Amino acid sequence: MTVLKVEGMSCNHCKMAVEKAVKAVAGVESVQVNLDKKEVVVNGSADRAQVAKAIEEAGYEVVG
Amino acid sequence: MTVLKVEGMSCNHCKMAVEKAVKAVAGVESVQVNLDKKEVVVNGSADRAQVAKAIEEAGYEVVG
Repeated sequence: MTVLKVEGMSCNHCKMAVEKAVKAVAGVESVQVNLDKKEVVVNGSADRAQVAKAIEEAGYEVVG
Repeated sequence: MTVLKVEGMSCNHCKMAVEKAVKAVAGVESVQVNLDKKEVVVNGSADRAQVAKAIEEAGYEVVG
């Protein structure tokens, strides 16, 4: 399980946009965004850097 | 021109969702969401109550 801290996810549309972007990354089995905690939790064998890149490309800032 | 004050629009996805919902109301010629001012500006002959209903149904609160 990989947990990324992400800034800028303010509503359910953001949540869906990030989940969709992360799901498209090779090796991702599942993804869950927690808006309150500002966390993106990813399961699978995906490369963390690639997940982070997908989130950034969707317009959000990975801070941790 | 009709201006509605709307709570809950936090990001560009919200802006697009509200604009799409309002555009579908009969009589609406154009619509512009201002996130900073929390305002939805509508041009056309649409009924204000119907515009408000469309915004509420999209998940946002019309407060004025």
